[in-house]
Amino acid sequence: MRTIDHIKNNENGENNMKIKGEDKKALWFENDSLYLIDQRKLPFSIEIIKATTVTEIAKIIKNMVVRGAPAIGATAAYGMVIGQNKAEKTANILKKTRPTAYDLFYAIDYMLDQINQNNDALFAAEQYVENMINQCKSIGIHGNKLIKNNMSILTHCNAGALATVDWGTALAPFRIAHQEGKQIFVYADETRPRLQGLLTSWELSQEKIPHAVIADNAAGYYMKKGDIDMVITGADRIAKNGDAANKIGTYEKAVLAKENNIPFYIAAPSSTFDTTINSGKDIIIEQRESQELLKANGHRIMPSKTPVKNPAFDVTPHRYITGFITEKGIKKR
Amino acid sequence: MRTIDHIKNNENGENNMKIKGEDKKALWFENDSLYLIDQRKLPFSIEIIKATTVTEIAKIIKNMVVRGAPAIGATAAYGMVIGQNKAEKTANILKKTRPTAYDLFYAIDYMLDQINQNNDALFAAEQYVENMINQCKSIGIHGNKLIKNNMSILTHCNAGALATVDWGTALAPFRIAHQEGKQIFVYADETRPRLQGLLTSWELSQEKIPHAVIADNAAGYYMKKGDIDMVITGADRIAKNGDAANKIGTYEKAVLAKENNIPFYIAAPSSTFDTTINSGKDIIIEQRESQELLKANGHRIMPSKTPVKNPAFDVTPHRYITGFITEKGIKKR
Repeated sequence: MRTIDHIKNNENGENNMKIKGEDKKALWFENDSLYLIDQRKLPFSIEIIKATTVTEIAKIIKNMVVRGAPAIGATAAYGMVIGQNKAEKTANILKKTRPTAYDLFYAIDYMLDQINQNNDALFAAEQYVENMINQCKSIGIHGNKLIKNNMSILTHCNAGALATVDWGTALAPFRIAHQEGKQIFVYADETRPRLQGLLTSWELSQEKIPHAVIADNAAGYYMKKGDIDMVITGADRIAKNGDAANKIGTYEKAVLAKENNIPFYIAAPSSTFDTTINSGKDIIIEQRESQELLKANGHRIMPSKTPVKNPAFDVTPHRYITGFITEKGIKKR
Repeated sequence: MRTIDHIKNNENGENNMKIKGEDKKALWFENDSLYLIDQRKLPFSIEIIKATTVTEIAKIIKNMVVRGAPAIGATAAYGMVIGQNKAEKTANILKKTRPTAYDLFYAIDYMLDQINQNNDALFAAEQYVENMINQCKSIGIHGNKLIKNNMSILTHCNAGALATVDWGTALAPFRIAHQEGKQIFVYADETRPRLQGLLTSWELSQEKIPHAVIADNAAGYYMKKGDIDMVITGADRIAKNGDAANKIGTYEKAVLAKENNIPFYIAAPSSTFDTTINSGKDIIIEQRESQELLKANGHRIMPSKTPVKNPAFDVTPHRYITGFITEKGIKKR
């Protein structure tokens, strides 16, 4: 795994995430290697990481070079391409990287199946990713129907192109609405501890969508003030009953939205729906290392001995969720 | 205004906030000067600031060298001592420093009254502060009655000795409970943007009270999980109907507490109750500069051009507040 300064140009630049004016994707596969934008470095610098082994792919997922359930799934799919000769072993290694995002397991099982059927692994992975990107665009088209002119919408964490290779889930409707000329304003929770709100801000800036980053504490203030018309977030895993795991803090925003009669939508492709579990109780919540809280953008912001607890996700019970925006349409609850 | 390394020893060390084993207060007046612990530097370093003019006192309040409604009131009272020869002018300057904390206005009006009656200004200020400290200790004694053995309690921001000269408001019951030998665990919201949760952690560490700092996003997770038995916060201003302004994010925690059937108490002395306003609608919410969000512990954590909004306080409607812990007892709603 190494950082390279090479930035790949996408052949079909149209509608892809922009990086300083050029159209890019969050990750791509080329000459037996996976290239990814290092999301830990954004928005301060754009660095491309190259990975060529299964160990490197596992590390990339674990260290959050790549994050966002669909993008993790795509990374794992390419990891299966790299490790196709020992497919079962590769699957086991990759499944141990992070416990919450369902797309990870979905993508690995899909690839295992394809490899066991002797289908071309790279072709299968490319199809998986292409399908995901198309699903995200469909999410954007369906989600856009919920957005009226002059709406202000809150989002939490980053469920944009970076989290999904392209288009995003929660951010896809904003992109379509903006392209259609609707005036919208996005409130982006900064999303401590890892400040993924900055990734959202970076993506929205590229698209020239008006927005403001706010402290996670301020979302309730703006909801009560009547400044937020709708909330849209992504999800990492959705149980059969509609309970949804997503970045820590999502549950707080959902409760506050309900209390203030604000519709709360979750945008996610089919690969995020886990039909093997009945409710959110069965979703494993990843506890991450204390360093994430003690630092921000690489800087120490708390003394190293500060006792901390750092759950990475929470589960929003289905009763707080107005509906799901999927590639198939809007599923009201 | 200058930073000095002098650390004053308090004559009656008993029960005072500890600094590296020595007992200290958040601020004290000596030889016509006000000395304060620079709270912007904690918990990384303990620096004492000395102020000798009204302009310096105003700057200290505005820049948040001192914060917490009661401590701001105490600082303003000493500011009135320094500026007693031009009392009306001093009052006007000091009242313009911060709009939300009621203690600021309460203390200034109290001092104006004393000065107009030709009472000794320093004596009046010392009495004001001594009274406040005693009120805080009483809050601790009353609040302790709500705390059962093995309880876990959430607090937001810092309503400890640093915010009140000594004892604290929300933290006073924890100190009394701990001294009585009750096993308690405190969840301290980190409280972005300024991370005052670190001040709470620092104070709790001095008192050896078990605790953990959590991202503001994680409070809901622990509430839903059943790990939090009670919430106690301070307040900056409380209206006649019980609506309470406090650090941004307090409203979120109050809504989440209600949703999870967790009692939510506000601890505050009489000087925080504003009998001139009927409801929270009349409380001015301070919007602070974007730098507070863009930086943490002095480090840049967001690109300087990130668009941000930064309200410093929110108002929690009285219906979310189980009761008030004051020096007179517990006022259930």
